[in-house]
Amino acid sequence: MPRYRLTIEYDGTPFVGWQMQNNGLSVQGVLETAVGRFCGEKVKTTAAGRTDAGVHATGQVAHVDLAKDWRPDEVRDALNYHVRPHPVCVREVMIATPDFNARLSARSRRYIYRILNRPAPPVLERDRVWHVSKPLDASSMHTAAQVLVGHHDFTTFRASLCQAKSPMKTLDRLDVTRDGDEIRVTALARSFLHHQVRNMVGTLKLVGEGKWSTDDVARALAARDRAKGGPTAIPAGLCLVEVTY
Amino acid sequence: MPRYRLTIEYDGTPFVGWQMQNNGLSVQGVLETAVGRFCGEKVKTTAAGRTDAGVHATGQVAHVDLAKDWRPDEVRDALNYHVRPHPVCVREVMIATPDFNARLSARSRRYIYRILNRPAPPVLERDRVWHVSKPLDASSMHTAAQVLVGHHDFTTFRASLCQAKSPMKTLDRLDVTRDGDEIRVTALARSFLHHQVRNMVGTLKLVGEGKWSTDDVARALAARDRAKGGPTAIPAGLCLVEVTY
Repeated sequence: MPRYRLTIEYDGTPFVGWQMQNNGLSVQGVLETAVGRFCGEKVKTTAAGRTDAGVHATGQVAHVDLAKDWRPDEVRDALNYHVRPHPVCVREVMIATPDFNARLSARSRRYIYRILNRPAPPVLERDRVWHVSKPLDASSMHTAAQVLVGHHDFTTFRASLCQAKSPMKTLDRLDVTRDGDEIRVTALARSFLHHQVRNMVGTLKLVGEGKWSTDDVARALAARDRAKGGPTAIPAGLCLVEVTY
Repeated sequence: MPRYRLTIEYDGTPFVGWQMQNNGLSVQGVLETAVGRFCGEKVKTTAAGRTDAGVHATGQVAHVDLAKDWRPDEVRDALNYHVRPHPVCVREVMIATPDFNARLSARSRRYIYRILNRPAPPVLERDRVWHVSKPLDASSMHTAAQVLVGHHDFTTFRASLCQAKSPMKTLDRLDVTRDGDEIRVTALARSFLHHQVRNMVGTLKLVGEGKWSTDDVARALAARDRAKGGPTAIPAGLCLVEVTY
């Protein structure tokens, strides 16, 4: 029973998130239905990141076991045929070892959060960015972000629904860069708490607006209290871009 | 009667093109309706590029005369309010001199054509790219593109419906670069013939596939015959990104 590793792209807009739920269409559900249409098997897929409703991916990774040996490109092309018309595609399929687990074997996850920072609303990037019309200072956002890098108790940036056992996480990178009207926040870690990236971005926006200083961010982190952090940035700006193993 | 210069972004997908037509919604129509809702005036706008149905813009420029003096940011914000829910926005408004003409005063137009070159279909870039699943050699496409740069008779790359008086144009740049799965063709000229960029891209794709050589492109150009050029690339990949004056 060979195990396959899938690299998946999706537009999160119409989905309740990666994970199968009773209240709407999930990426997982669309993918597992496509597997069923392809080879008649009822399978369960496991993904590296359980992205929320509205959050996108260009590099989500999942694994699935199939009864038969297929060529990886056959699996890729068949799934891309059967997921239609949903905004999901399988970019790459590889044969994985039996002990490979897309969630547990992941060494790092990289997310990019995009802010469109201009007076005019997004058009070509609609549903892909957070629109902030007032000018943000990306440089001071980057400086403040460095306070969050390292091994910390991230309770301040953790959703109340978060199921992780511990709020301790190591954030390897949190870079804020500007390219024209767009500000990009790149977050890299072995793993993240629920809403951690969006809560950090919502806090850094306060810094970009000049309402918060780097010290305010440090104090918020030290408080270990969600109520002391900034608001949660909208899901549309977030994208899971890479998982490494 | 002050003249305003507008920089406009739009998703070309739902439109019959920039220009007002009887068979559907145009960007020009949406914009002129928004002006009417904003200040009650029935105006005519003139744009730098009459983009086709499905072609996008991030830097289209148009001019419009209004009876009253408005602050540029008032015009921008009011039009962005009144164009809703159509995928059009006004990125910038400037006061122009009375002799400024968005079409006739333009010194250069820059288009970018995006090809998504991978087996999996586009998802996040759906309606923004031309999907070509077979690998293309971007480097040989760039080499062949240089044959088209310069002052030439571009009849081979001109739509039969083209209304320009002469097929003679000067192409200043035609660069082909690859970034991961995406190939970008950047075309710069004072002005272009109808379908010129899409016809050049369709021809360069033949080079990328290894079906045509640089010499084949030179021969096609010299033939001055549309039937000797490659096919017309789809509109979704094309975007008018900048007009200079």
